[in-house]
Amino acid sequence: MAHIPTPEGLPGIRGLFAFRPETALPLNQLVDVLLQGPSTLSRGERELIATYVSAQNDCYYCQTIHGAIAAAHLNGNEDMVRQVKLDFDVADISEKLKALLIIAGKVQQGGKEVTEEDVAAARRQGATDIEIHDTVLIAAAFCMFNRYVDGLGTWAPQDAEWYRDRGRFVAQHGYLASSRQYIPALARAAEK
Amino acid sequence: MAHIPTPEGLPGIRGLFAFRPETALPLNQLVDVLLQGPSTLSRGERELIATYVSAQNDCYYCQTIHGAIAAAHLNGNEDMVRQVKLDFDVADISEKLKALLIIAGKVQQGGKEVTEEDVAAARRQGATDIEIHDTVLIAAAFCMFNRYVDGLGTWAPQDAEWYRDRGRFVAQHGYLASSRQYIPALARAAEK
Repeated sequence: MAHIPTPEGLPGIRGLFAFRPETALPLNQLVDVLLQGPSTLSRGERELIATYVSAQNDCYYCQTIHGAIAAAHLNGNEDMVRQVKLDFDVADISEKLKALLIIAGKVQQGGKEVTEEDVAAARRQGATDIEIHDTVLIAAAFCMFNRYVDGLGTWAPQDAEWYRDRGRFVAQHGYLASSRQYIPALARAAEK
Repeated sequence: MAHIPTPEGLPGIRGLFAFRPETALPLNQLVDVLLQGPSTLSRGERELIATYVSAQNDCYYCQTIHGAIAAAHLNGNEDMVRQVKLDFDVADISEKLKALLIIAGKVQQGGKEVTEEDVAAARRQGATDIEIHDTVLIAAAFCMFNRYVDGLGTWAPQDAEWYRDRGRFVAQHGYLASSRQYIPALARAAEK
């Protein structure tokens, strides 16, 4: 049971969104821009960064749902998601994404951990300013989401199929649209 | 110099907002709701939570600007801000705020650090569900903002008067309105 009374049947951050639609609106808009908006990083790559940081923060709900969304964007490649979480250095991903994951991992530990050399290494693999910016902000944002979800003691389904279903839905429709589906107040706020 | 080319003359998160207005919009809306929106916690109390977490994360820009905004809301009481950062247990603040700061400090370390007993202790001091929710989200959000500001290597003014001036302005006008002032693209996006 969560530390605060969230509506029954809504796990993880979904119960928190329903509890407080006023903050749910900008939080959903933030992930829509960062993870689904126009970018030279693919949606799968961005979800892998979110999943990796959530795994480093040991947040079960976030790493599992974002892992499922990543897999949905990657033609169902759950092995790649697992590999990125376990040891991204040997995963079948680009050298650029590996360099960005190093930066994301530093951000997870603390902003000051990122060095000039980490950034230069990412640039050598072709990373652009916006890709570096977005990687840092995605990693930082998941240090927020993970703490939000676990700090309020939310519950998480244990059924892998639940995450696969939901992952495909979010991958297809986006974050705000998916959240509006079950939060009437968010639907009203988003139409303003 | 920041790791990415931000516009000259804009320190801390302000250069990042100008660099990427698409993410600046929901980030500003989030802090407007959390720190300046309707709440039974005063604006000064909420800024003290943001300042405390930023100090724990050793983010100079964030702890100094939010400390200045807190002081602006607290009739210029900079001593109270300093005391909360150094040792909030002996600060001249309510027992409820102290209990909420304990929760915020746990969130800063990691979401799972928050215990049932921490939450029960805050309730015994009169904290409501929404106050507990908002405290966790403020603390989590500043774990994002601090990592964003330091992870991209932004610079920070060293002049205390700069922070006092800016702190008074933000305290009076709010976050989005203050950011729109110097980011034309954000002003356009916010009018949509």
